[in-house]
Amino acid sequence: MSSQAPHPTLLIPGPIEFDDAVLNSMSHYSESHVSAPFVSLFGETLTMLRKLFQTEDPASQPFIISGSGTLGWDQVAANLAEPGDDVLVLHTGYFADSFADCFETYGVRATQLKAAIGDRPQQDEVEKALKEKKYKLITITHTDTSTGVLSEIEGVAKLVRRVSPETLIVVDGVCSIGCEDLQFDNWGVDCAITASQKAIGCPAGLSIVMASGRAIQSFKNRKTPPATYFASWKNWMPVMQNYEAKKPSYFATPSPQLIHALHTALTQLLSRPLSERFQIHKDNSQKVKKAITDMGLKQLASKPENQANGMTTIYLPEGLTPPEILPTLMKKGVIFAGGLHKEIAAKYLRFGHMGVSVMDPKRDDMDRALKALKEALAEVKKS
Amino acid sequence: MSSQAPHPTLLIPGPIEFDDAVLNSMSHYSESHVSAPFVSLFGETLTMLRKLFQTEDPASQPFIISGSGTLGWDQVAANLAEPGDDVLVLHTGYFADSFADCFETYGVRATQLKAAIGDRPQQDEVEKALKEKKYKLITITHTDTSTGVLSEIEGVAKLVRRVSPETLIVVDGVCSIGCEDLQFDNWGVDCAITASQKAIGCPAGLSIVMASGRAIQSFKNRKTPPATYFASWKNWMPVMQNYEAKKPSYFATPSPQLIHALHTALTQLLSRPLSERFQIHKDNSQKVKKAITDMGLKQLASKPENQANGMTTIYLPEGLTPPEILPTLMKKGVIFAGGLHKEIAAKYLRFGHMGVSVMDPKRDDMDRALKALKEALAEVKKS
Repeated sequence: MSSQAPHPTLLIPGPIEFDDAVLNSMSHYSESHVSAPFVSLFGETLTMLRKLFQTEDPASQPFIISGSGTLGWDQVAANLAEPGDDVLVLHTGYFADSFADCFETYGVRATQLKAAIGDRPQQDEVEKALKEKKYKLITITHTDTSTGVLSEIEGVAKLVRRVSPETLIVVDGVCSIGCEDLQFDNWGVDCAITASQKAIGCPAGLSIVMASGRAIQSFKNRKTPPATYFASWKNWMPVMQNYEAKKPSYFATPSPQLIHALHTALTQLLSRPLSERFQIHKDNSQKVKKAITDMGLKQLASKPENQANGMTTIYLPEGLTPPEILPTLMKKGVIFAGGLHKEIAAKYLRFGHMGVSVMDPKRDDMDRALKALKEALAEVKKS
Repeated sequence: MSSQAPHPTLLIPGPIEFDDAVLNSMSHYSESHVSAPFVSLFGETLTMLRKLFQTEDPASQPFIISGSGTLGWDQVAANLAEPGDDVLVLHTGYFADSFADCFETYGVRATQLKAAIGDRPQQDEVEKALKEKKYKLITITHTDTSTGVLSEIEGVAKLVRRVSPETLIVVDGVCSIGCEDLQFDNWGVDCAITASQKAIGCPAGLSIVMASGRAIQSFKNRKTPPATYFASWKNWMPVMQNYEAKKPSYFATPSPQLIHALHTALTQLLSRPLSERFQIHKDNSQKVKKAITDMGLKQLASKPENQANGMTTIYLPEGLTPPEILPTLMKKGVIFAGGLHKEIAAKYLRFGHMGVSVMDPKRDDMDRALKALKEALAEVKKS
């Protein structure tokens, strides 16, 4: 039995449903941010992130900062790029446009390589772009939450290393870390950013970043100081290193309650092999995608190989809009999200299937959601 | 009876002890950040902030952003100043140095007006400084948490308006909002920043800001775009205005759980007149300061008129350092903080007395703390 008050099941691509133990950690009694127990807890949390990101290189540097996934973009733009640098942004939806905006804010020139809606840039296009200009870094959105398109990180990373070895490889993993395989060391990723409230399963409020030794070296070799104060690695790196060494340290006050919740979420997440977790997400995703197809519905992410495993984007039948079906779904106890991609927002739904909703065998979220969707479609068609 | 696990009472100048109802709100079930119930809750929270800051001017604009108090500095430096601008920073401790650092990060020239440790700049010095240069804004730390020095906002604000009417008046109220009187409209304050975890009594993780109509106008008249993405009012202002109008809106994902906790804390805080709340903090502060003096101890904040009401900074007897007494205090169930001001950190303690520890008549935190301090001093002297 859950200790949570009865509520409709939240099946949007984040925030997701949270485990009772994680939510209970949110109400931990007040602690000093420099006390030994809290510093130790923060240090353990950072060390667990290394496992989550699959990095064993001691030069890799994790960061946890109060904020949201968006703050990770500022961290990349202000710490890994310098004003006047060129960066290449692979576009698979809304979030590439915003990441590019963020770079421009810091005087960094962002070139976007766009694909058709529901698709992703092809490797030969990426290769061509990399040969045209010297890029300080390339960004790849692992799963774009607006389209449900999954990028192919391993292949693109290999390509970048071959064609433009000095270009740093940055992954926006906000909607992927914790549900999609990301082998930070093996694939040569230099920086991956995420947030707490998606596949990691901890309430929103934390920006989570992993930087490679190569990224940290590039940061140390900057000609100009970082163009941010709150998100500056110059300010945070010593603090994170001290925490992990279990030494008190201070730059800005972290949120002890959120760190407790993240510690609980990561402990649960790492209690079984990551490969198993990814497979369960994949199996559930396949089940959802098959059910959607059986209902006669199409997905935005058009090809099986570019469909995310943590969410599904569903085109509604011609003429039906999200506001016409979401309330019916809500009455049936499930919350989906409407569209987010500007050009087609009124035409599709987004269904998130990450974390406890697929991992906890005591929950029937997936079956209830698919049943609700089928019934709701029939009802709104009739009316 | 508290629903919290037994723990030593946290009496540092933030985070403070939290009320059970506030902590329980932290474990609220997961909600969409754009759902009607959450948007309505966020809107109410913003409206309550207007009452807390004592502003009735509809042109005033509240902001709540995931982060910490420090993010408020970035908001001021990147939204209210422009590269090349001069700003005047009144220095009453550690936090002025950091605020000045933050300005410099954004290319803003910060001139600090310093006072001796434990004192604050005098009005004739401020007047002289204002006449020497044209300052875009002046910053005043209401209570500097490193020294316990209280600034005199009303008088300085009046002076600025007389001598340099175009200069914006910015108050760092991280350790004052909720326990010291700050009359935003009446005193002509243009921007006040704070954090959730101090006198407001909500766990850390939120940067809270109020900007006057004049500040917003100055922001709109900028010649250059804001030099931050995550902390940009260009990105957040429409979102905050939509929330307060109960319309869903999105820039970056807020933390529903923290907003629930802040809503609960503000509801409790505003359930009685602010004047009563300030008086109770003052009465408790007087009691602490008298007891300290009776123990033969001196304070850093040297004059009665510049002593904060939410905390007390206590010089230890000659030769005794914080690490020698803090563990004894901890054994007696209370946690104080050590020194923070670089030059004298090893010589003093900081005792926070804000929020439920003074407001809740069912708690005996103050008496226990003073008893523990007296006993601990006697014990460490003997050993």
